[in-house]
Amino acid sequence: MTRILLLNPNTSADITERMMVVARAAAAPGTEVIAATAPRGVPYIATRAEAAIGGAIVLDMLAERLGTFDAAIVAAFGDPGLGGARELMPVPVIGLAEASMLTACMLGRRFSIVSFARALGPWFRECVAAHGLNERLASIRLLDDPFAAVGRVGEDKEDLLVALAGKAVEEDEADVIVLAGAPLAGLAARVRDRVPVPVVEGVAAAIRQAELLVSLDPRKAVAGTYRRPDAKSSIGLPVPLERLLAHAGA
Amino acid sequence: MTRILLLNPNTSADITERMMVVARAAAAPGTEVIAATAPRGVPYIATRAEAAIGGAIVLDMLAERLGTFDAAIVAAFGDPGLGGARELMPVPVIGLAEASMLTACMLGRRFSIVSFARALGPWFRECVAAHGLNERLASIRLLDDPFAAVGRVGEDKEDLLVALAGKAVEEDEADVIVLAGAPLAGLAARVRDRVPVPVVEGVAAAIRQAELLVSLDPRKAVAGTYRRPDAKSSIGLPVPLERLLAHAGA
Amino acid sequence: MTRILLLNPNTSADITERMMVVARAAAAPGTEVIAATAPRGVPYIATRAEAAIGGAIVLDMLAERLGTFDAAIVAAFGDPGLGGARELMPVPVIGLAEASMLTACMLGRRFSIVSFARALGPWFRECVAAHGLNERLASIRLLDDPFAAVGRVGEDKEDLLVALAGKAVEEDEADVIVLAGAPLAGLAARVRDRVPVPVVEGVAAAIRQAELLVSLDPRKAVAGTYRRPDAKSSIGLPVPLERLLAHAGA
Amino acid sequence: MTRILLLNPNTSADITERMMVVARAAAAPGTEVIAATAPRGVPYIATRAEAAIGGAIVLDMLAERLGTFDAAIVAAFGDPGLGGARELMPVPVIGLAEASMLTACMLGRRFSIVSFARALGPWFRECVAAHGLNERLASIRLLDDPFAAVGRVGEDKEDLLVALAGKAVEEDEADVIVLAGAPLAGLAARVRDRVPVPVVEGVAAAIRQAELLVSLDPRKAVAGTYRRPDAKSSIGLPVPLERLLAHAGA
Amino acid sequence: MTRILLLNPNTSADITERMMVVARAAAAPGTEVIAATAPRGVPYIATRAEAAIGGAIVLDMLAERLGTFDAAIVAAFGDPGLGGARELMPVPVIGLAEASMLTACMLGRRFSIVSFARALGPWFRECVAAHGLNERLASIRLLDDPFAAVGRVGEDKEDLLVALAGKAVEEDEADVIVLAGAPLAGLAARVRDRVPVPVVEGVAAAIRQAELLVSLDPRKAVAGTYRRPDAKSSIGLPVPLERLLAHAGA
Amino acid sequence: MTRILLLNPNTSADITERMMVVARAAAAPGTEVIAATAPRGVPYIATRAEAAIGGAIVLDMLAERLGTFDAAIVAAFGDPGLGGARELMPVPVIGLAEASMLTACMLGRRFSIVSFARALGPWFRECVAAHGLNERLASIRLLDDPFAAVGRVGEDKEDLLVALAGKAVEEDEADVIVLAGAPLAGLAARVRDRVPVPVVEGVAAAIRQAELLVSLDPRKAVAGTYRRPDAKSSIGLPVPLERLLAHAGA
Repeated sequence: MTRILLLNPNTSADITERMMVVARAAAAPGTEVIAATAPRGVPYIATRAEAAIGGAIVLDMLAERLGTFDAAIVAAFGDPGLGGARELMPVPVIGLAEASMLTACMLGRRFSIVSFARALGPWFRECVAAHGLNERLASIRLLDDPFAAVGRVGEDKEDLLVALAGKAVEEDEADVIVLAGAPLAGLAARVRDRVPVPVVEGVAAAIRQAELLVSLDPRKAVAGTYRRPDAKSSIGLPVPLERLLAHAGA
Repeated sequence: MTRILLLNPNTSADITERMMVVARAAAAPGTEVIAATAPRGVPYIATRAEAAIGGAIVLDMLAERLGTFDAAIVAAFGDPGLGGARELMPVPVIGLAEASMLTACMLGRRFSIVSFARALGPWFRECVAAHGLNERLASIRLLDDPFAAVGRVGEDKEDLLVALAGKAVEEDEADVIVLAGAPLAGLAARVRDRVPVPVVEGVAAAIRQAELLVSLDPRKAVAGTYRRPDAKSSIGLPVPLERLLAHAGA
Repeated sequence: MTRILLLNPNTSADITERMMVVARAAAAPGTEVIAATAPRGVPYIATRAEAAIGGAIVLDMLAERLGTFDAAIVAAFGDPGLGGARELMPVPVIGLAEASMLTACMLGRRFSIVSFARALGPWFRECVAAHGLNERLASIRLLDDPFAAVGRVGEDKEDLLVALAGKAVEEDEADVIVLAGAPLAGLAARVRDRVPVPVVEGVAAAIRQAELLVSLDPRKAVAGTYRRPDAKSSIGLPVPLERLLAHAGA
Repeated sequence: MTRILLLNPNTSADITERMMVVARAAAAPGTEVIAATAPRGVPYIATRAEAAIGGAIVLDMLAERLGTFDAAIVAAFGDPGLGGARELMPVPVIGLAEASMLTACMLGRRFSIVSFARALGPWFRECVAAHGLNERLASIRLLDDPFAAVGRVGEDKEDLLVALAGKAVEEDEADVIVLAGAPLAGLAARVRDRVPVPVVEGVAAAIRQAELLVSLDPRKAVAGTYRRPDAKSSIGLPVPLERLLAHAGA
Repeated sequence: MTRILLLNPNTSADITERMMVVARAAAAPGTEVIAATAPRGVPYIATRAEAAIGGAIVLDMLAERLGTFDAAIVAAFGDPGLGGARELMPVPVIGLAEASMLTACMLGRRFSIVSFARALGPWFRECVAAHGLNERLASIRLLDDPFAAVGRVGEDKEDLLVALAGKAVEEDEADVIVLAGAPLAGLAARVRDRVPVPVVEGVAAAIRQAELLVSLDPRKAVAGTYRRPDAKSSIGLPVPLERLLAHAGA
Repeated sequence: MTRILLLNPNTSADITERMMVVARAAAAPGTEVIAATAPRGVPYIATRAEAAIGGAIVLDMLAERLGTFDAAIVAAFGDPGLGGARELMPVPVIGLAEASMLTACMLGRRFSIVSFARALGPWFRECVAAHGLNERLASIRLLDDPFAAVGRVGEDKEDLLVALAGKAVEEDEADVIVLAGAPLAGLAARVRDRVPVPVVEGVAAAIRQAELLVSLDPRKAVAGTYRRPDAKSSIGLPVPLERLLAHAGA
């Protein structure tokens, strides 16, 4: 049994549930997907500030659940807290953006990221750069419309998102489309035949990449930049995180 | 049933068999791995010239087997012919280097490629650049020793390769080691605990990535740079490739 | 009167005080420097995980002090939370690393970052890249010795740090040395004549750059990627930050 | 007497002849230009797949003619097989794209590549990147029209190509225009006065660069990445290539 | 008393005076700004050729005034002669473009350069690249209109420049606007509230950065690439420069 | 008859003569090489400051000789004033470094620059970057010894330079060696068989590239960044340059 933690750094349980539908369908037999929704923070991370807040919450949530999963997915496109999580955790941790983009790399030369709100642009752009994938990015294309409910934006804006993906292919020379953002979970399958290039479903890609990493059974680094940080005291942090940083009982 | 073609562009059947041992162990239940060894070419591709020869052979081999597989792996580190194969094939095609490197990206910031012959350096370096992954590469470390039999180089040089991996971690700040080259198939598991960072087994990664891509059920691009090339006549090519280029009966 | 907040994201009050000595000496007449030490977190941020924790704390601390300063300095080399702080705050916010590095750029072609612990390397490297300054970096040189007390590491390791700076000049072609890390505040002046190129005192540079930005009286962006994020509800966050995110009373 | 082999990797003899007209006019007294047309392959290489096929054919053709030339030109823009050819041959080998682009670099800061078919884009783009010249590229501008006969596309589309070159200058800040592709041989002279910046005639540039390299009398590398590969056995390859790889009689 | 030399490499005394108005207003109490206008050269440098001419004049002017200033500003956007000046002078020398761009970096992720003549484009672009700041550049936006008098272009074209800045923000994702060129001195304050992001007044930024560098009291490099060049004889140069190069009386 | 101006921006007539020996030998029948030595400046340009001085002198010298040559070579490695010269001149102008490096690109993947004085490093490095060729540079290797006479440094240091070239090949993976600097003219031929990769003789390459450009008969750009600058008045410049800038009688 492989246990994969699908950690939503947003506080929106309906988005978690939306991702879980895709996750369960994508998971191999023998994989259990465990959902977690952020108990504090914002409903939907969209800016650098919200990502900074969410990044710390990701570490709290992981520390609290330590030992209950074989791999974890930071399930917000933008991957808040991913680097720190990878340092601290003894098991693989991957990001939703990371898994989506690296999978896209196997389907074409350059991918475009398509999503539903212009506010996401700077955060996404910095995420691509942080992963060293600028050369593989064709464009980031974002809707610039208000939307009623973030949890239903995939349905409500489906036609507009398909049109945007088409533009990315036609004008930006994208070979692959990455539909970005937890609220768009499930959309890729619905629009598969209306976009002229492969469309990556990020949640499915992340679940499968997590399974893949578990199957490779990589050791935890004891050297390099992702070795576990030395024990350090702290004050005022949630107890599980404090203990994790301090190597207490670990 | 998912059928994955493990295509060895080298003519060495023993290397194919060595990879197949790892591939079968890595494959999920329900995956059939089909082996193919190049019927012409060189025993072990190591230079740009040999890669150019091998690239064309890869296309011949794929054309001949068209319809018998759901995804294919170009199983020589360096990925000869990969771009052309991805254009021509209606199903996913990935490279051994590509799958290894992208998998390594999920396990750390920078990876080092470790292999057994200095002659491989230029080809590997151009391969990393062609995939747009220079920023993720810590170093390429190669043995500079003669070896008796390429098929046994993993066993014969195991200690030296472990030492080289250690140097890559210590001096080049590698977070992950990619053991490169078909002849090293199976080595990662043996040295797992002697290298202080995760070691990627390329053949296992490639099989799992191929399964992952099949499970995502991506459409064949009808736009972008990996759409199928327009029909074109040719002369003097093997009949299956000629027919594939000509859209004959396809 | 210009009020500059010197915000230490570490919990070590002695490091804050050490920086304040330099800050007060560097400040122009008419500048008031206000110190703040993190009330929770770790004594000294050194890894990606600790930076993620610290980044969120920076936002908390700024929100709590909103309206009491004309510019703020995130006073940990690595600049945790800087991007988010710049989005949220109506006044300039700069990072200690940012101010040090940009100042160094006016004193030579390439700078080397010299500091006291190898663990800082990955975080510093990602910081340089995030600021788009890779081309201006000659090297990061770090001591690899244990140290007794982080607050006294500048004194205890002075000779070793001077030697390291010399190596950066001689071997890495550095034109300028940036002594990195809050605990090294004050060291630049002491070693000025023992290093053959200019040495940047980060805290002094940051105070002066903050004054400079205030004097330019830049408007708060209402467009671009640093405009204030749209109002957003949140749960479980400290009240000042919650109100800031919600545009409550602002 | 300097013998330069103008090797057309396409099977279209009329394109070879078209290039030879330009080549003969460009050649210095004392240069003999020897034409060779691919005996197998496609009439006109336009995609990665066709380039992979052509790259191997280039090696066959060179091996067969070994000893009969003092320098060779791979006369398809995109330079299929160039790296391998340079490894194997004892004399200089250059590519049509390479010679065109490097010559353009001496006439301005950035060049645009102008050609007649959109399908060529990906291959050309990868060629520019492979030569490390992205920074010198202003744009690739391609017609998106059907054409009747590739051999006459330069005449038939002359006005459209001039207009496209004009756009590259006006909108992309190109300082130089490279007319790309063997079928456009001879066009540069005809449009010289209708394009407001220098236009590089690729075939003429290649002939002259080949002469230049011969005149420099460079030694064959016995180290570095273009030294001759070690002797290697092969199976199923054309005899001259097999013997060349095996160092037989060489 | 800090003496800052504001060196205008152009021969237009009215532009010098225009800059001095801003400079005096920006200077801290205790700073004396000394103006110098090029005694030979062109009224307004706008091309590579004019910059080459101006660069040598900058060195002449600095040599002549050696010992009369504590820092110098090369006050033409494009920074002619800056590198050489930094080598030769015992005190800090900064460029108008350099100071503007580095200051802009603290106010946002990417800046756009906005100016009044298309001819400036290539020179500005090479200046950004020479400072290693391509990654921070959103765009260069230039008016393409004739203008009556360069000294009044800021007033005459104010509305057009504001509109251009708006486009840079809207279409190029600029976070900050740099108004480039000595003739635009003073414009930033006037348009501050009509541009939706911070606008950098270059002359003010340069004066304050010069003061900052003086306050840091950096030593003159005796190693690295900005150490003083070894003594060298010369012929035909102005006597102060000849003596400076020869280390005569220095 | 093709007239090529070999313009030495240094004041050392013996270096001009040394280059002329190589130039005459390299020139094709029908080429006249015209020598010019700087009438003012320094004996040998080695730093940014000296290059700035030399750049302006190059423009003076060219203006004075306008109409007497069909192409010009700026014959100091580092190419002082090249960009401005290319703008102003109606005929091709190339740099010694430019011609050497672009020629080297056709002989291997990466080249190393080998020269005789460490002081040259920064200038050379900026020259490579300015030409956009960083990706093709393996290393810059410089002797760090005093030398008696710059005009004889090639003879006196021959063995050391060969050893340095060998190191560049062995340790830096250089495929080609560029012997840099006018005083090394003629050395390449002498050491050809003692260096294991091709060695580029810069003066010969420059002469031949100049001939090549003349033979292509490129038009003078009337658009793009190398069009002739608009007419501009000036004061205090040598009359030929003043008239050239003013479009007087041109």
